[in-house]
Amino acid sequence: MTDANKASAEELALIDRYWRAANYLSVGQIYLMDNPLLREKLRIDHVKPRLLGHWGTTPGLNFLYAHLNRVIRRDDLDVIFICGPGHGGPAVVANTYLEGSYSEIYPEIAEDEDGMRRLFRQFSFPGGVPSHASPDTPGSIHEGGELGYALVHAYGAAFDNPDLVVACVVGDGEAETGPLAASWQSNKFINPARDGAVLPILHLNGYKIANPTLLGRLGDDELRKFFEGLGHEVFFVEGSEPAAMHAAMASTLDAALARLRDIQAKARAGGPVERPLWPMIVFRSPKGWTGPKEVDGLKTEGFWRSHQVPLSGIASNPAHLAQLESWLKSYRAEELFDEAGRLLPELRALAPAGTRRMGSNPHANGGLLRRPLLCPDFRDFAVTVAAPGAVEAEATRVLGAYLREVMRLNAETRNFRIVGPDETASNRLDAVFAVTDRAWMEPTIPEDVHLSPDGRVMEVLSEHLCQGWLEGYLLTGRHGLFSCYEAFIHIVDSMFNQHAKWLKVSRELPWRKPIASLNYLLTSHVWRQDHNGFSHQDPGFIDVVANKKADIVRIYLPPDANTLLWVGDHCLRTHDRINVIVAGKQPAPQWLDIESAVKHCRAGIGLWDFACNDQGAEPDVVMACAGDVPTLETLAAVDLLRQHFPALKIRVVNVVDLMALQDESEHPHGLAARDFDGLFTTDKPVVFAFHGYPHLIHRLTYRRTNHANFHVRGFMEEGTTTTPFDMTVINGLDRFHLAMTVIDRVPGLLPAAAHAKQAMQNKLIEHEEYIRRHGEDMPEIRDWSWPYGAVSA
Amino acid sequence: MTDANKASAEELALIDRYWRAANYLSVGQIYLMDNPLLREKLRIDHVKPRLLGHWGTTPGLNFLYAHLNRVIRRDDLDVIFICGPGHGGPAVVANTYLEGSYSEIYPEIAEDEDGMRRLFRQFSFPGGVPSHASPDTPGSIHEGGELGYALVHAYGAAFDNPDLVVACVVGDGEAETGPLAASWQSNKFINPARDGAVLPILHLNGYKIANPTLLGRLGDDELRKFFEGLGHEVFFVEGSEPAAMHAAMASTLDAALARLRDIQAKARAGGPVERPLWPMIVFRSPKGWTGPKEVDGLKTEGFWRSHQVPLSGIASNPAHLAQLESWLKSYRAEELFDEAGRLLPELRALAPAGTRRMGSNPHANGGLLRRPLLCPDFRDFAVTVAAPGAVEAEATRVLGAYLREVMRLNAETRNFRIVGPDETASNRLDAVFAVTDRAWMEPTIPEDVHLSPDGRVMEVLSEHLCQGWLEGYLLTGRHGLFSCYEAFIHIVDSMFNQHAKWLKVSRELPWRKPIASLNYLLTSHVWRQDHNGFSHQDPGFIDVVANKKADIVRIYLPPDANTLLWVGDHCLRTHDRINVIVAGKQPAPQWLDIESAVKHCRAGIGLWDFACNDQGAEPDVVMACAGDVPTLETLAAVDLLRQHFPALKIRVVNVVDLMALQDESEHPHGLAARDFDGLFTTDKPVVFAFHGYPHLIHRLTYRRTNHANFHVRGFMEEGTTTTPFDMTVINGLDRFHLAMTVIDRVPGLLPAAAHAKQAMQNKLIEHEEYIRRHGEDMPEIRDWSWPYGAVSA
Repeated sequence: MTDANKASAEELALIDRYWRAANYLSVGQIYLMDNPLLREKLRIDHVKPRLLGHWGTTPGLNFLYAHLNRVIRRDDLDVIFICGPGHGGPAVVANTYLEGSYSEIYPEIAEDEDGMRRLFRQFSFPGGVPSHASPDTPGSIHEGGELGYALVHAYGAAFDNPDLVVACVVGDGEAETGPLAASWQSNKFINPARDGAVLPILHLNGYKIANPTLLGRLGDDELRKFFEGLGHEVFFVEGSEPAAMHAAMASTLDAALARLRDIQAKARAGGPVERPLWPMIVFRSPKGWTGPKEVDGLKTEGFWRSHQVPLSGIASNPAHLAQLESWLKSYRAEELFDEAGRLLPELRALAPAGTRRMGSNPHANGGLLRRPLLCPDFRDFAVTVAAPGAVEAEATRVLGAYLREVMRLNAETRNFRIVGPDETASNRLDAVFAVTDRAWMEPTIPEDVHLSPDGRVMEVLSEHLCQGWLEGYLLTGRHGLFSCYEAFIHIVDSMFNQHAKWLKVSRELPWRKPIASLNYLLTSHVWRQDHNGFSHQDPGFIDVVANKKADIVRIYLPPDANTLLWVGDHCLRTHDRINVIVAGKQPAPQWLDIESAVKHCRAGIGLWDFACNDQGAEPDVVMACAGDVPTLETLAAVDLLRQHFPALKIRVVNVVDLMALQDESEHPHGLAARDFDGLFTTDKPVVFAFHGYPHLIHRLTYRRTNHANFHVRGFMEEGTTTTPFDMTVINGLDRFHLAMTVIDRVPGLLPAAAHAKQAMQNKLIEHEEYIRRHGEDMPEIRDWSWPYGAVSA
Repeated sequence: MTDANKASAEELALIDRYWRAANYLSVGQIYLMDNPLLREKLRIDHVKPRLLGHWGTTPGLNFLYAHLNRVIRRDDLDVIFICGPGHGGPAVVANTYLEGSYSEIYPEIAEDEDGMRRLFRQFSFPGGVPSHASPDTPGSIHEGGELGYALVHAYGAAFDNPDLVVACVVGDGEAETGPLAASWQSNKFINPARDGAVLPILHLNGYKIANPTLLGRLGDDELRKFFEGLGHEVFFVEGSEPAAMHAAMASTLDAALARLRDIQAKARAGGPVERPLWPMIVFRSPKGWTGPKEVDGLKTEGFWRSHQVPLSGIASNPAHLAQLESWLKSYRAEELFDEAGRLLPELRALAPAGTRRMGSNPHANGGLLRRPLLCPDFRDFAVTVAAPGAVEAEATRVLGAYLREVMRLNAETRNFRIVGPDETASNRLDAVFAVTDRAWMEPTIPEDVHLSPDGRVMEVLSEHLCQGWLEGYLLTGRHGLFSCYEAFIHIVDSMFNQHAKWLKVSRELPWRKPIASLNYLLTSHVWRQDHNGFSHQDPGFIDVVANKKADIVRIYLPPDANTLLWVGDHCLRTHDRINVIVAGKQPAPQWLDIESAVKHCRAGIGLWDFACNDQGAEPDVVMACAGDVPTLETLAAVDLLRQHFPALKIRVVNVVDLMALQDESEHPHGLAARDFDGLFTTDKPVVFAFHGYPHLIHRLTYRRTNHANFHVRGFMEEGTTTTPFDMTVINGLDRFHLAMTVIDRVPGLLPAAAHAKQAMQNKLIEHEEYIRRHGEDMPEIRDWSWPYGAVSA
């Protein structure tokens, strides 16, 4: 840092004016629907009838944005801004307006008085923009409504973006959340040679909605230890007097960025890559800074009362109206904007230009930068299936080989990562370690395997970090896959929700370009959590998923390895969606050769000819299945039924794409009524073996003609550490229960079938006795295989 | 600490033998189904066919348990053990067996050779016990299957238990999770004068399933800073040589407990209560300690390969069988157990007696200690409702006054707390601050309000901590309420799941006594998130809830203040359930006087006579509603329809208890078919306005006779920052859409009603234009009130 680069007093005075302009625009957005430049005395009818938004965090955000502008411009930096307190939306909107990004995207919000009026009016206003840093907001990849994910998004954005600096503001409220608390450890996954940098800025304004914050009331000593313990070098900027704060922030930002550059330069000089102490800034400034000091005699600036709208009830309180006017006038808009309402040129010059503006940085509209993922031909990894059930394979292991090649093909582009909570090998995707390692920046010992600073598999025992990293990575234009134990994906239900909401809104904005889909591979699923028990058995995530907009979500239940290959390949090629794939990792019979798998998966649902014996006739019963274990049990039930009732006409329908069950008016993948009725008949019993909670099938099919005849079996919330087959028995999903349901439901089978039914009940008793004695399933269960080959009866 | 109290070499040698006994029993549980004392040479048929469980963490847990026994016995301490690595179930089972707790609860697992055989055999065996520290495990309040909640459960247990010490083992895998990372801050909520103590023991065994851990590879310097920054005094115990480790752990535990006593003594001497630096222990020991050093030439002890079952494939690998035998023999069982298979007396004497045993401590079976919550007469807080719709009230504010009295009545017993993410006041429950404060141990400033070390309202911006504290509090026999923004309760979906699973299994165990229900008050709900937007709009938590066992869950949607009073009071009096209450906080019309509310809520569902005009006849249409906003819109739609179609017979059904919609065979609150059909008819159109996602109503009613005629409107995943009424419009839940649906569905109304329908469509256009111009809803919408009083037409 040469002295010439240091911020001069003049520059800081300009920055202060820029900050005032942003603050003015922020207050204006919260309060005004007219009279934007206060050319008239402020009247009630200039003020919005409903005052919505959050002032408290906003001036601090404005302060940071202005100072970041200075260093971006000076050093031509590539910086995006993650606004943890996203409900400080007025700040990000104000700043992207001041720098010109906003009006470029939304020309009706022009850089003049009328544009300013519209800018103010639209905020939190019907038909306008929401109060948060939502997808509508230029430069945002982070909504900030649900707190906790700012820092993990920042790290996700920084991976494989060596020239990018992600400035991430973390509010001290958000810092109390679990996901944020875990996110600090993300710095141990940044390779300074390969990745960009995150500059965390902990904004201690001291208060939440109605409370002090835990970190805000700590002394600097504990804060310093805490963050040093987290591997940071800590820079403090603290105070409330603007001039001193400008000087402190300018020099601190200079120092922190110099440290970043040093770290990266050292790592990129070719020496050994070591984990550095990354700089971070603790920024302690008053909540609601520059706002009303007191309202109705109560402390407001520097206190939680400034969290949302410090002055309320303005329509009925002339004193508040007057106080609002003097607050707005305290920014001296006449020193900031010209007659036409345009920012004065000397202030406009403080913002960077073009795509260096944080509101126009293409990383924050990742679809602009997205390059298609290179995928191998999935057929090359197919399992040879001479006849249905003739071979066994581990589905996820087969997919793992495919993913290895995806990893290899995109190694140079560096735009594909796999994340997971320490389960890549457990989930049998370890083929990928042939071409990459786990990302690891801490010390290693000789016995370690597949750990490297250059690894592209991200493992950490936090589903929140996996999800958040991947979101940040996708939102900045890259690709990825999240493999997870099925039960524990519920941990990120709410993050899933928020990402789905982000996509839903983004897709309505033409300027937001499509990003790669978020792909989940859920394995170690409810039916095969052999080492664990009830806590690991929960297939309910797909119920949460099914609540989201039909355009956004897809749920796939491939029954074997070749169908999983097709589905995995397909999902990696899609965009702006969330794809959920549920597939097992245990050795299991394979049903479809690759071409049959392709055909079946393309349709999403279909008859399995080899298992049907209803050719040329209406069946007596439809046996439907979705999921690998339900498919196995269904086919075993078919075998039982054929043995007992050779004349019974059975049709087998397998569902890969769960959304095909819905009506075509409800989901783009939904089956037309005629096609659905053609498969499921209009009046025959349907015994449906389902991977998840049975209600989901009912919910998807209740409008279908034959729904009243659907009998769904699935997970009934019965579980423990037991044998694989017993898991199906205690939930009534096993072959015997399925077959007995058919006996009960097909008209005319009983009473003649009573004997067969009793035989099945006896088998269940025999099973129970056997497993309690031997601790494993009966050989006839374990060894069962489809005896009919590819020939339909 | 006098020298006499220090552990002698003889005592440490005994502890080492005790530890070996626990390790022996642990390995035996994982591997053996017979030959428990190795009286015969180990054969394949002695070994379980399926080897399930987790060895890696187990010896460390055994080590800690043995050392805790020593100090409990010496100082007559009241200690419970929270086993963060709950999948180290063999350790907790082994130790509770050694101390005698296990055989007292499960007499068939006796303290002799046959009992030991059964102990071994049952582990992870069909019909036996699961592999985790599940409800079956004596002394456990924490399953540990889903990682992240050990420490927050520990703190929940410690609140208001001044004499209790909660020894909480946190694995270094779990420490990577978000909830655990946030939980460290819980120490800032412990009042040493009033609460018990948590002794966190971070167990750094260095590895997860297939990876090193982040904290395990840190040096002591960063670890010390990190935990000092978190407000702890850090004690390290590190090594692998048993004798040295015993000595280090004994003296460290002595020092840490002495520090605890000093802190509590000082605080309880009557001086000012200040936040102390709480002791914690960092315990660095090898993963799979004392297990096989190498397996097949690969490092196993002290490495991740010992995570689950270090020696596998034993049936086909004689070398592994031999290695298992020598591993088991390394513990020298003959020095630990007598001929009969009983622990030798000098070892048995090391365990505490009676309820001091951690497996028999009543705090870990909280129902034993639960005292009924004292509740006031909720009628005392009722809103006077002279006629339906005649007054407005804020429902949660009314409940707040009731909760204030609950707080007051139980102040002396100190067994009731309210938790929430900084939203108690925002959710309008601030009446409670008349009798208590927020718990706050950090410094205060004069302007602070309602912060105190003695506060019984727990606020922290982490739903995870709120949920976890409350779970720990309930599981140790106390009562509480969690108030939360509706959308963000999804953050704890997975914790809810796990608690529901815990309750389900607990209820099947006669020795587990009922605990108070977990009560959620979800407010600031989807329809009235005025300051925020789409991210804050999600009513899907109840879909997750509905997946759980019917016996466990209840979902209530009280439509006004008096019904909320009944529901709130009812829920606080229940046990072993999870009650979800969804209710608004905004001013809203009140429908039922208190006696009508009682009658309606007791039934859970019912006709609203005052709104029906179908007396003495079948209605033309049933208008059903569940939730406050849907009820308001339904009644406004009824008004519209009456104006346009005076002869139309409308029946209004309101649902408070959502489970009443299910069949009585599906849920204990389910309505009998006859009653359901009586309410909803068997063939008339039902227009159902629902608070949440419409599918939930279909899912609950698909078996009902008239289901095909149900037309449900609810949240369609459309949201933003807009007016309250507009939120209903964009989701089609508003009065106009409801009324138009009736017009479309009642046979014979069209085409004559086309004009009325057009008028409604015009109103929606007028609404849209009005809100875009004025920023608030039209006066006729805001001012609408039920014009018919209590008189049914």
